Amino acid sequence: MQERHHVVVVGGGFGGLQLVHDLKGAPVRITLIDRRNHHLFQPLLYQVATTILATSEIAWPIRHLYRDRPEVTTLLGEVQGIDRAAKAVRLASGRAVHYDTLVLATGATHAYFGHDEWAAVAPGLKTLEDATTIRRRVLLAFEQAEVEEDPARRDALLTFTIVGAGPTGVELAGIIAEMAHRTLPDEFRRIDTRRARVILVEAGPRILPAFAEELSAYALRELGKLGVEVRTGTPVTDCTAEGVRIGDSFVPSCTLVWAAGVQASPAAQWLGIEADRAGRALVDQGLSAPGNGDAFVIGDTAAVKQENGMPVPGIAPAAKQQGAYVARVIRARLTGQPAPGPFRYRHQGSLATIGKRAAIIDFGRIKLKGGLAWWIWGLAHIYFLIGTRSRFAVAWSWLWIYLSGQHSARLITQKETMRGDG
Amino acid sequence: MQERHHVVVVGGGFGGLQLVHDLKGAPVRITLIDRRNHHLFQPLLYQVATTILATSEIAWPIRHLYRDRPEVTTLLGEVQGIDRAAKAVRLASGRAVHYDTLVLATGATHAYFGHDEWAAVAPGLKTLEDATTIRRRVLLAFEQAEVEEDPARRDALLTFTIVGAGPTGVELAGIIAEMAHRTLPDEFRRIDTRRARVILVEAGPRILPAFAEELSAYALRELGKLGVEVRTGTPVTDCTAEGVRIGDSFVPSCTLVWAAGVQASPAAQWLGIEADRAGRALVDQGLSAPGNGDAFVIGDTAAVKQENGMPVPGIAPAAKQQGAYVARVIRARLTGQPAPGPFRYRHQGSLATIGKRAAIIDFGRIKLKGGLAWWIWGLAHIYFLIGTRSRFAVAWSWLWIYLSGQHSARLITQKETMRGDG
Repeated sequence: MQERHHVVVVGGGFGGLQLVHDLKGAPVRITLIDRRNHHLFQPLLYQVATTILATSEIAWPIRHLYRDRPEVTTLLGEVQGIDRAAKAVRLASGRAVHYDTLVLATGATHAYFGHDEWAAVAPGLKTLEDATTIRRRVLLAFEQAEVEEDPARRDALLTFTIVGAGPTGVELAGIIAEMAHRTLPDEFRRIDTRRARVILVEAGPRILPAFAEELSAYALRELGKLGVEVRTGTPVTDCTAEGVRIGDSFVPSCTLVWAAGVQASPAAQWLGIEADRAGRALVDQGLSAPGNGDAFVIGDTAAVKQENGMPVPGIAPAAKQQGAYVARVIRARLTGQPAPGPFRYRHQGSLATIGKRAAIIDFGRIKLKGGLAWWIWGLAHIYFLIGTRSRFAVAWSWLWIYLSGQHSARLITQKETMRGDG
Repeated sequence: MQERHHVVVVGGGFGGLQLVHDLKGAPVRITLIDRRNHHLFQPLLYQVATTILATSEIAWPIRHLYRDRPEVTTLLGEVQGIDRAAKAVRLASGRAVHYDTLVLATGATHAYFGHDEWAAVAPGLKTLEDATTIRRRVLLAFEQAEVEEDPARRDALLTFTIVGAGPTGVELAGIIAEMAHRTLPDEFRRIDTRRARVILVEAGPRILPAFAEELSAYALRELGKLGVEVRTGTPVTDCTAEGVRIGDSFVPSCTLVWAAGVQASPAAQWLGIEADRAGRALVDQGLSAPGNGDAFVIGDTAAVKQENGMPVPGIAPAAKQQGAYVARVIRARLTGQPAPGPFRYRHQGSLATIGKRAAIIDFGRIKLKGGLAWWIWGLAHIYFLIGTRSRFAVAWSWLWIYLSGQHSARLITQKETMRGDG
């Protein structure tokens, strides 16, 4: 084993896992490093934030996935840098892990466009902790409104603002509006949760810009039916604990969620190569880092162009395709076969849900919207979950909500001072 | 509504919920105050700590339980004191809630016998956060052992010490030993998790002292089969980040869990009445606080004697019986019926599990142990869960573990510096 070609993969997201999966049986040993012990199914993370799913339904311990692959070693660790000359990954613990081939699949996080001070009041949604933080703040806002005597403050507590109208922003806004207007009204005695405002702010001209205009227009109408106020064409200019400034007008709002902007992980910096404005590593057409061919960058942290000149989107299927591609390259090199051609991205479609009954799907030529799209969306997501247990558990949670209308994971956990209250 | 007799209940545990349930239809309005938004099914909390169940499977938002009871108002708030003359509960937010009848059902927490500094290294198990803290520490210990080069430190990381051998301590020790010896071995490459040590320390002469001696002896044998080292008759004299001192000998152990000692909530202090050594309020035979009859104390925070002179145990069925009793007293007073006699506790039995296949049940005359007891234990707990959704979800999680041997909630969440590591 010890003499085998050593592939070190950093990041257990969609790209990293696909790579490890596709290297099964190749003449390599693999070390997979992640700073989390779990793989996260990010497309459903917004459902944890909105009390629909439990954390363990969309996350799996990485090392458990490879229990039957003795050539795969999983390490919990945080990368601090890479020594390309010595071919070693340096971890925060001080340890160095030597590689023959390195694959960086370290993903991206949200960006505040130079306003990192907004992070404390407008959390983004990338990790399980982010999701439970948002869940706690949304639920606490209703609780605090119930005991608030000052009407202005009560209105601010019942105003929820989501910044950014990509799929995540639309999905969060839809579910929070449904909670306020349909799930919660019977449970409060002093406030009418149906009076809660959910505001979705988008700097660009329309919501869901990655979708065809007709689907975007449909989503806008559906959000309107759910009671979401959509404000397009105006950027957010300030976020504070009291509210949000949209263009020139200040909206008192105690709960803000950030669903705009992407900042890649520092993979380019570690490798000492160029990055684009969002920090994504500029790799060549074979997803290699310029310099020599022993380091690859895949997924949200790589800047890759499609044939039409558009960037490959930062979505799970793109990361998986890149992981599969690099696995083919590594396999070809080690077995002396001809190298595959340049990486080509095949766009399989875009999906987004609006509330609990409607969705839009853009397959390019085929476009779907409404209830059928929602069912396809649901079945696709259950299919892509890992393992029988999770598929059953998520299907059960959804079925339960569908039948009863009641969310199952409405827990306020972790300690955080109740804002503005003792 | 506003003129109705106002019952204020503090605490949404088993006692408080039973009281509210049994006051249905009585000529009262009810305000239920808790500092958490959820009721917690504490008997299964150890399963969250040991990666078997998800938090949302054993906790429910309190206000959701009373959505169909318009006379019940739920408040999220922390009690700071009680003004008996003014008949008002003072909350941390500064607000005062007036009552006609007050019921304190505020429970208990773990006690470190004057060594509160042990709390940081030896967390107890009372809240959902406690459970995720213990889960994180247990899982991180294995992760860190996998990357540790120093053999002595690696052994300390693979030594888990549970202090206190009541049902919770026995249940935690059994499941952690099963994880180490059966669930995890295939997933690690550098350590053999079967070499992990699980030590259960009990100051008293035997484990599970509330059970008959033969059941206690059976549990001891079963723990031995699972590889748990039991040390009875020796108190823990120190807890540090490096390990635990048991009597005079120091055992290097990086993960400690505290399952000993009980400290009641400050209900007695709030009421200005006497308490026993564990802080439990000394109430009269009708569960009233001495002074006047408008304040009751029930559950783990009340000191009540059985007819045989033994104290009523701090378990869920006792709290529920007291909640039901006080509901009868309130109802009788308001409808002019004769008051019920003094509270009488009916012990229905004691249950504990050892690992995933064995349990003991002590009904007094009937004693059960082994697989049949385990099934009765499981069915009883599913029966007592709230709501169809949770019953299905827990049954599914257990069935999955029973069939696959794999735990489903092995997530390290929340931020805590990896101990002794970068």
